[in-house]
Amino acid sequence: MQFADAKFNRSYLLLSQKRYSSAVHNMEQTILLPSLLRDVPYDDDDTLDCEAAENNKDLYECYLQLKAIKNTVESGLVPHDDAKGKSHAVLHKSLEPLLEADPEALFHFHLRGLFTVMASLTKKSQSLTKKYLDIIGVSH
Amino acid sequence: MQFADAKFNRSYLLLSQKRYSSAVHNMEQTILLPSLLRDVPYDDDDTLDCEAAENNKDLYECYLQLKAIKNTVESGLVPHDDAKGKSHAVLHKSLEPLLEADPEALFHFHLRGLFTVMASLTKKSQSLTKKYLDIIGVSH
Repeated sequence: MQFADAKFNRSYLLLSQKRYSSAVHNMEQTILLPSLLRDVPYDDDDTLDCEAAENNKDLYECYLQLKAIKNTVESGLVPHDDAKGKSHAVLHKSLEPLLEADPEALFHFHLRGLFTVMASLTKKSQSLTKKYLDIIGVSH
Repeated sequence: MQFADAKFNRSYLLLSQKRYSSAVHNMEQTILLPSLLRDVPYDDDDTLDCEAAENNKDLYECYLQLKAIKNTVESGLVPHDDAKGKSHAVLHKSLEPLLEADPEALFHFHLRGLFTVMASLTKKSQSLTKKYLDIIGVSH
């Protein structure tokens, strides 16, 4: 399957994945003491919600989630022990009309969805990095 | 962003994309006279529905659709003139509960969705190739 490799290297999906991976890599390199993020509450003004408002997550949990998603992005594999029962029940309930749609539309829907989620997560990683620099008093 | 390239080359998502691309490439190499697929109806027994049952598509339209999706898979970009109004209305209607879900679950949902659609489309490309060989009387 070597013939197609060059094409995929220019793929916008791959570029979007690399952008996210790079943002989390930068976050990991910058945040040397992640524990400083513990108990730091969600701030309404930025994009760092990570469902914090609903689940009372602190920024440390947000940091762990962004790192976990990076592993999934790089391996391209959904973890087998992904037992987010409640969320998935909601997601699957809404799948029914999708299954009846035509395959091209369904493919576009999921591709668009991945782009949107990854762009949002990339912003979150960058915001979290800035937030950490604020906490340790480094101007940026 | 060079550091992550090696990781992405082992990505299961990329592998799944390459598998589809390769199946369509093989289909294109085999089907030298695509017009022979015109007016060939949908067959209940195989996976070549391509929504044929609903939309009365013939195998030629199915062939064109699989080729078009290959271009999207390789570029990783959803076509801008994607005006599948009806299907998208259904898809977007079902998005509301997804938007409230947490980003990790949403990411997994779309990643799983892409895998499922691509596996199904890969099978369709292989079935269509076999069907063509049947039509021209080549055993396989």
